[in-house]
Amino acid sequence: MSEFRRDPILREWVIIAPERARRPSDFPQPDLPSNGALCPFCEGNESFTPPEIAAIRRPGSAPDGPGWQVRVVPNRFPALRVERELVARPYGLFDVTSGVGAHEVIIETPEHVRSLATLPEQHVRAVVRMYYDRIQDLSQDSRLKHVVVFKNVGAAAGASLYHSHSQLIGLPIVPPRVEAELRGAEAYHKQRGRCVYCDIVYEELDRDERVVLDLPQIVAVCPYASRFPFEVWLLPKQHICRFQQSSDVLLEELATALKLVLLKLDLVLEQPAFNFVLHTSPYGGGDLPYYHWHLEIMPRLVGVAGFEFGSGVHINPAAPETAAAFLRDADVEGAFNGNGHSHTGWGYSQRAGLSPRTRTSA
Amino acid sequence: MSEFRRDPILREWVIIAPERARRPSDFPQPDLPSNGALCPFCEGNESFTPPEIAAIRRPGSAPDGPGWQVRVVPNRFPALRVERELVARPYGLFDVTSGVGAHEVIIETPEHVRSLATLPEQHVRAVVRMYYDRIQDLSQDSRLKHVVVFKNVGAAAGASLYHSHSQLIGLPIVPPRVEAELRGAEAYHKQRGRCVYCDIVYEELDRDERVVLDLPQIVAVCPYASRFPFEVWLLPKQHICRFQQSSDVLLEELATALKLVLLKLDLVLEQPAFNFVLHTSPYGGGDLPYYHWHLEIMPRLVGVAGFEFGSGVHINPAAPETAAAFLRDADVEGAFNGNGHSHTGWGYSQRAGLSPRTRTSA
Repeated sequence: MSEFRRDPILREWVIIAPERARRPSDFPQPDLPSNGALCPFCEGNESFTPPEIAAIRRPGSAPDGPGWQVRVVPNRFPALRVERELVARPYGLFDVTSGVGAHEVIIETPEHVRSLATLPEQHVRAVVRMYYDRIQDLSQDSRLKHVVVFKNVGAAAGASLYHSHSQLIGLPIVPPRVEAELRGAEAYHKQRGRCVYCDIVYEELDRDERVVLDLPQIVAVCPYASRFPFEVWLLPKQHICRFQQSSDVLLEELATALKLVLLKLDLVLEQPAFNFVLHTSPYGGGDLPYYHWHLEIMPRLVGVAGFEFGSGVHINPAAPETAAAFLRDADVEGAFNGNGHSHTGWGYSQRAGLSPRTRTSA
Repeated sequence: MSEFRRDPILREWVIIAPERARRPSDFPQPDLPSNGALCPFCEGNESFTPPEIAAIRRPGSAPDGPGWQVRVVPNRFPALRVERELVARPYGLFDVTSGVGAHEVIIETPEHVRSLATLPEQHVRAVVRMYYDRIQDLSQDSRLKHVVVFKNVGAAAGASLYHSHSQLIGLPIVPPRVEAELRGAEAYHKQRGRCVYCDIVYEELDRDERVVLDLPQIVAVCPYASRFPFEVWLLPKQHICRFQQSSDVLLEELATALKLVLLKLDLVLEQPAFNFVLHTSPYGGGDLPYYHWHLEIMPRLVGVAGFEFGSGVHINPAAPETAAAFLRDADVEGAFNGNGHSHTGWGYSQRAGLSPRTRTSA
């Protein structure tokens, strides 16, 4: 069974999840089958995943069968499980907490394609909407303090499956990086009376050196202190603390921005490996005047090596100004409009009895 | 020219080093030539590196020619340079500091071998001794606050060259991870009046569940909250704040422990990619009762993906207890003693006029 263990120096948690691998030979190189091998995420192979938690389905289609557009299932090798009791205890001088949490896979399309960016705009909206719905639904589990929605594409970004998908992990702790963001943003707000993310939006739009995309409600920028070459952040222009406060229009525009930026990255960097992570404020805590949800996209063109892990300082060989210029100039209009046909008549379905609260045995 | 840029939220620095790559096509996959291509680190190819900073040489041999055992040169694509002025300034709401610092390569052997572990014990001692000498020498540059010595082996660990080497980066800042360690260790000391690393040594030796190696002065353990599968820390048993305070005997034993542990990792995990990082207290600051130098070895068997970057929480699929058992049982005695022949008559040489202080134009 997995558990959270706390580093006694940094006070940061790690998840020890030995169910995933037990022997030294259990660390295979990821293979990303593009063809041939059976893909558990393809339509028709629903029986190869655990039972679905939620889906956008054709009316009348049955769970765990064909007829879906976006499908959410538990991770087959979960780092955490909801069906456990939350127990925190000492272990000598160390701290340990049981590995309670949610670990879900958002299968973004029934077709065996690699790139979210090549899906029709309406379909990307459905994926973004599913992020929203899952975060909302998991908020009912009072043990969970935070949800991280993320996507890994390509072996260099830690992905082990080819078929386009995202993941989410719901945590009984506020993770250290999110805590550090909250602390830093709060300190900035205390000093200047403004949200640091709002200030970044103003500053970047003013300077216009690192802006990749400027839509009515969303701006995409290569951040000034980018850790990764061609890192891009998508930020709402208006202050908005948590993702769940987003209007339908804002969510739709996020999907548009995401599709455009991913197409630009694919064009300029030739289908790079990348991660993206949705940063939003933890559950509870009310409306924070200093925090601002955003999405960070991190292409994985250079390795993260000893220096980075030892110092916490990243070396980025690409100036964000240069990266932004390449991305701004990348013409993806044809690719964006080229696959605009989308099915209609999808409906959100969530299986009764599988919401995290009811799935808990305790 | 490279520069340090500070993230306005986390207040963490990144190094933007655009000299290393300018265009999107400048991010090639690392190739690690084992044969064929000219290796700039091999004996006889000294002219393919910048002029050497220090070396352990046969008496009478000339710098930048053959006749060396361990050789230190500036990184050909340095993230930082010593020959610059340290200037800190604002840039809108951001902070920026010029990219002053040292970036050196420690070529560990004149022969084209991949593994430090296969060098004779005496030779590994010379490498460890060189770490010591370089940290001492760079302490003369009053602009530098800290030095990170690290090693990357294998493409998955961010290495781009096959030939056995380490690197060091001297920084005009105390990097965020080191600062966090210092803060955490100080808080522990304030609460309990003891060094947290000393306590870890006691606890691990008492429990004997995660000990890999127990030498008279050094213990090797898989840390309780290991971020990486088969992560191993080498810790001096006695409290010792900074690496430069180490006795000759302690340094020799570190070399022995390092060779043994790397041989064990190579045996159990079949030559894994890995990083190691020497953690020591920053320059200045006197003797800290709460900090304790140590060396962290991080095999790179699983990718670091979106969740880790977004949350700061690592998922480790191998329990450190299991990893330690495998490593403890790995019999490397034959390999350890199999190449015990070592040359004698080496002498440390450092080129006049190339120490960081004198290399500084300011």
